Amino acid sequence: MIIVMKPSATKEQICDVEKKLTEFGFKTHPIYGEVKTVIGAIGDKRLLNTQAITSMPGVESIVPIMKSYKLASRELKQTPTIVNVGGVEIGGESITIMAGPCAIESEESYMAVAFKVKQAGAKILRGGAFKPRSSPYSFQGLEEKGLKILAAAREATGLKIVTEVLDTRDVDLVSSYTDIIQIGARNMQNYKLLQEAGMTGKPVLLKRGLAATIEEWLMAAEYILSAGNDNVILCERGIRTYETATRNTIDMSAIPVVKELSHLPIIVDPSHAAGTWKYVPALSKGAIATGADGLIIEVHSDPTCALCDGPQSLTPANFAQLMEDLKPIAQAVGRKL
Amino acid sequence: MIIVMKPSATKEQICDVEKKLTEFGFKTHPIYGEVKTVIGAIGDKRLLNTQAITSMPGVESIVPIMKSYKLASRELKQTPTIVNVGGVEIGGESITIMAGPCAIESEESYMAVAFKVKQAGAKILRGGAFKPRSSPYSFQGLEEKGLKILAAAREATGLKIVTEVLDTRDVDLVSSYTDIIQIGARNMQNYKLLQEAGMTGKPVLLKRGLAATIEEWLMAAEYILSAGNDNVILCERGIRTYETATRNTIDMSAIPVVKELSHLPIIVDPSHAAGTWKYVPALSKGAIATGADGLIIEVHSDPTCALCDGPQSLTPANFAQLMEDLKPIAQAVGRKL
Amino acid sequence: MIIVMKPSATKEQICDVEKKLTEFGFKTHPIYGEVKTVIGAIGDKRLLNTQAITSMPGVESIVPIMKSYKLASRELKQTPTIVNVGGVEIGGESITIMAGPCAIESEESYMAVAFKVKQAGAKILRGGAFKPRSSPYSFQGLEEKGLKILAAAREATGLKIVTEVLDTRDVDLVSSYTDIIQIGARNMQNYKLLQEAGMTGKPVLLKRGLAATIEEWLMAAEYILSAGNDNVILCERGIRTYETATRNTIDMSAIPVVKELSHLPIIVDPSHAAGTWKYVPALSKGAIATGADGLIIEVHSDPTCALCDGPQSLTPANFAQLMEDLKPIAQAVGRKL
Amino acid sequence: MIIVMKPSATKEQICDVEKKLTEFGFKTHPIYGEVKTVIGAIGDKRLLNTQAITSMPGVESIVPIMKSYKLASRELKQTPTIVNVGGVEIGGESITIMAGPCAIESEESYMAVAFKVKQAGAKILRGGAFKPRSSPYSFQGLEEKGLKILAAAREATGLKIVTEVLDTRDVDLVSSYTDIIQIGARNMQNYKLLQEAGMTGKPVLLKRGLAATIEEWLMAAEYILSAGNDNVILCERGIRTYETATRNTIDMSAIPVVKELSHLPIIVDPSHAAGTWKYVPALSKGAIATGADGLIIEVHSDPTCALCDGPQSLTPANFAQLMEDLKPIAQAVGRKL
Repeated sequence: MIIVMKPSATKEQICDVEKKLTEFGFKTHPIYGEVKTVIGAIGDKRLLNTQAITSMPGVESIVPIMKSYKLASRELKQTPTIVNVGGVEIGGESITIMAGPCAIESEESYMAVAFKVKQAGAKILRGGAFKPRSSPYSFQGLEEKGLKILAAAREATGLKIVTEVLDTRDVDLVSSYTDIIQIGARNMQNYKLLQEAGMTGKPVLLKRGLAATIEEWLMAAEYILSAGNDNVILCERGIRTYETATRNTIDMSAIPVVKELSHLPIIVDPSHAAGTWKYVPALSKGAIATGADGLIIEVHSDPTCALCDGPQSLTPANFAQLMEDLKPIAQAVGRKL
Repeated sequence: MIIVMKPSATKEQICDVEKKLTEFGFKTHPIYGEVKTVIGAIGDKRLLNTQAITSMPGVESIVPIMKSYKLASRELKQTPTIVNVGGVEIGGESITIMAGPCAIESEESYMAVAFKVKQAGAKILRGGAFKPRSSPYSFQGLEEKGLKILAAAREATGLKIVTEVLDTRDVDLVSSYTDIIQIGARNMQNYKLLQEAGMTGKPVLLKRGLAATIEEWLMAAEYILSAGNDNVILCERGIRTYETATRNTIDMSAIPVVKELSHLPIIVDPSHAAGTWKYVPALSKGAIATGADGLIIEVHSDPTCALCDGPQSLTPANFAQLMEDLKPIAQAVGRKL
Repeated sequence: MIIVMKPSATKEQICDVEKKLTEFGFKTHPIYGEVKTVIGAIGDKRLLNTQAITSMPGVESIVPIMKSYKLASRELKQTPTIVNVGGVEIGGESITIMAGPCAIESEESYMAVAFKVKQAGAKILRGGAFKPRSSPYSFQGLEEKGLKILAAAREATGLKIVTEVLDTRDVDLVSSYTDIIQIGARNMQNYKLLQEAGMTGKPVLLKRGLAATIEEWLMAAEYILSAGNDNVILCERGIRTYETATRNTIDMSAIPVVKELSHLPIIVDPSHAAGTWKYVPALSKGAIATGADGLIIEVHSDPTCALCDGPQSLTPANFAQLMEDLKPIAQAVGRKL
Repeated sequence: MIIVMKPSATKEQICDVEKKLTEFGFKTHPIYGEVKTVIGAIGDKRLLNTQAITSMPGVESIVPIMKSYKLASRELKQTPTIVNVGGVEIGGESITIMAGPCAIESEESYMAVAFKVKQAGAKILRGGAFKPRSSPYSFQGLEEKGLKILAAAREATGLKIVTEVLDTRDVDLVSSYTDIIQIGARNMQNYKLLQEAGMTGKPVLLKRGLAATIEEWLMAAEYILSAGNDNVILCERGIRTYETATRNTIDMSAIPVVKELSHLPIIVDPSHAAGTWKYVPALSKGAIATGADGLIIEVHSDPTCALCDGPQSLTPANFAQLMEDLKPIAQAVGRKL
């Protein structure tokens, strides 16, 4: 940690900062420049309230040197984490595709699409039973009835399932049905929910917040990891920018950045990023070539009748075509699909 | 609602869209341009899944004409809402100031600052018992012990209190202590929490999400209002932008925009917006002059020892000075402090 | 064009708007909803100052239906434009790679790197003779001396060259040396420069502005096209967002969006997007798989001694390896490298 | 300057970095932490290409301690700069108001509005003769004819004038007519234009770029100052964010930030920030209360007939009312209007 003192800081103020740091077990190394003094401080930042230092007289700013996350960092664990979901691996040599409709609408329609995405090569089924909707007047999901349909589809197809949880009170219920617990973008900083999901021990798919930095995202993962759960899968789903041509702006560079900073696997959700199915194939190919460990794609048998996110859903036929197109890309980057 | 058809749309596709709209009770008015056809549709958008229309063949886009929120809109209710918190009004002629430390740390320190902010003219005490922290290793709040301290401070000072709730499971507990329930920026789209807070009937202080549009913010308010609770106070606290000179970028224009679109009162949190106490006085004056109905300001007896957000806290002396400086501004815009 | 009237608009105000539109040759089609009236208007938007309509009493907003750009739009020209630079095609079946150092520093070093990027398979040499630097104290380029070195490198290698122009006064000079004129991100809305570059008739590489929307970018291209120059190559180079992990956020979705809206070819600059060479290979692969027509990559023989942008430059060896890795990706999307 | 080495950096790499710094005249102070080593470096950053250091093996990042701008900084000059425009001061005790239409359309209409804004209390007339328009099909300004009208209005009213220059080739012409040269947002990083404007010695109104950081803005000012011209007036005009309720998001916190970092005066353009005249009065009051040294406001006699930016223009009557309303605000913050 580096403390930058103001040009006007007095010797006494510099001394006070050093004293405070020493109290918390830091070793200090002042460097006297011509205009400003900076103090290098070596110690465990977690033991110190760095904001308190920032407030001291004469202090201009604090520059952290170590990352705020530990368990999620590549510095702590150098080998990539492979999350194993009942035999399906995420983060290994194979690219893992998750697919299915945004929301579960009925058993019949869900079963139909489930078999189709399986046939095309998906390994994990997606489907929302609890839906976070920006309008209170929109369809909010089938809740437990939806979870039962999901479980039936798993039974019938042999695929694994992933579904979202919105409320700490539902974590046990959702966890009793699903193979992977999804934390949505809007809840990325719902810390109580992160802790509860962490405590289940189940794999957690952690979507990046609507406008979260990569550092905040890894801090959110840290909440799950620090609850003793190592099975975190990160999911890039586009960030909020000024550009309105797409629903969100996919941050493709997050893939190599996450791979450098963390050992956790990262997948991409091109459907929510684009907001329209037309761009999903191009972004899916781009994500795999950039190094993503998988994709989560919305597929609906009849997008014009979908109760949620129809415009960004592929038809089963388009999805099957995309799966074919992805194979040579996966191969080109040394992976399998 | 206006449906814009693609230049390549066929007569049949246009006809199909009209049929679908008619099914949902809309009256349609096609306008045939030289390149594109557009269809005007009159009816209740809430009865229709507009995304389904977007997915139909030949449709380019949909342009909503009516707002998605109803109860929060100025179109529905033209007179401004004044939220009454046990006699303290927010949204009326008087500017209402809320103040206190970020987190409640101990009864002694809290009581001391409570009396000081009262003396300076604040009407409502703030203080966090449950704290959303980006790091799992940071101080997370005193929880119920903190709520008891808050209640004791209310008893002692006669001020009203406001505190944040993070988890649906704690809504009843927090509600049993506080006068105003605060929903923080990170939870603005935690819809279950909004509904639970709405159902208490207590006044709710709804902070704008970290990167929420004003429309999304009003939709979040709609969740509370549609639970039968009219007492919503909006709070602008800065939005996320590319600029890093301040912690967030205060969106001062949100004040007149909200006043135009909605009847709900709006206050400003200059402390979280700036992230440093130095800019708090300037932004506080600016907010009042721009038309805010109040402010919520962090004040700490000893910012360098604060467990949370010390750098952005005013000392009681600075706060008292600011209250003096705000009086002529309030007067200049025809209000009282 | 759709004019949305306020709920409070009077019959007279509606009538006045219709009159004004009729004056400008528009046909009007009012639709009377329960709350608001909207007026459909058919005609040539370029003949009308739409802002004037927005200012009329009773008008809430105007919704454009047709794009503001014509010559750049896919609606006007459905076949993709292939820009031919002395036999090197951009936008055809082949992926075109441009490479070289950020700035030209000396003839010796430039020649060395030129031969190396040719050997690795690049078809076009890049190199800055006029450099836009955020600090007046930074190296500003060799100016005409740099252009002479570029021309010599073209002579020696047989490659084509691309270089940036900053000032209308230098357009003729730069144009007399270069094969492609580059307009940098900071000048994307320097309209006089766009017009001058357009009038040369030379191919123009138009970088996306630092925070330009895709629509503004296509409007900038329209300035060049409307000067009678069809040879515009668009270049995505990352946009400004709140994320600081990379220098800019590469907007990979701009590739399919541009392909849908426009007939112009689009290449990607992964070096400026990432700001660090480590992420360049991943983003290059991703860009090709997403559908880009080419790449422009910074390569420097000794990045630690570069006078400009060393941290984001590949070494010739890394560049040669990347070119090998890109081949199977290009093939996987049906193209050649 | 602090150089942060990677955890994996070898002793040799640390030594190489120290050597390189020493070569450039820096004194180095390494601090060996448990995980990372950091090197403090004291010297003149302008003599060093810091990017070269970033590219050295073992280097993780560089943290600047001193600002990149010198002449614009408060560290260099502690007293506020007051720009004197022929007797009208900007940055002194008085708030200075600039007003007028977006574009000059005809002598008659311009004269009419000029007398009205003078009567209301404006001290400086604005009006565009060269207009940067996003569409090549929009009105581009009257050019020199417009400058002549401006000069005639100055003659007739006794007010000072400000107008924009777009092209280096027009700097002398514009400078020969105007009292203040305006550099628009789109040209904030048109460095050649900054230098040319700087060399005239005339006061320069430097608008903040569409998505410029405050640091980049001060670096742009540095270009003018380093050309020997001390008369720079900064103008905040809203920045680009994801929010679309206003044309731009006014960054009111830029006022206290600029006042802390720089000695230059800062004014606010509420018209371009808001994009609609309705919000201009609220933002104008807010800007003065926050500490702005002045305002530049669009006023048009008949906004519905304006050739440019009508929707954001006040009528002369609304402007006169606003001037009255601003007086008590100016007084409340200890200033005069």
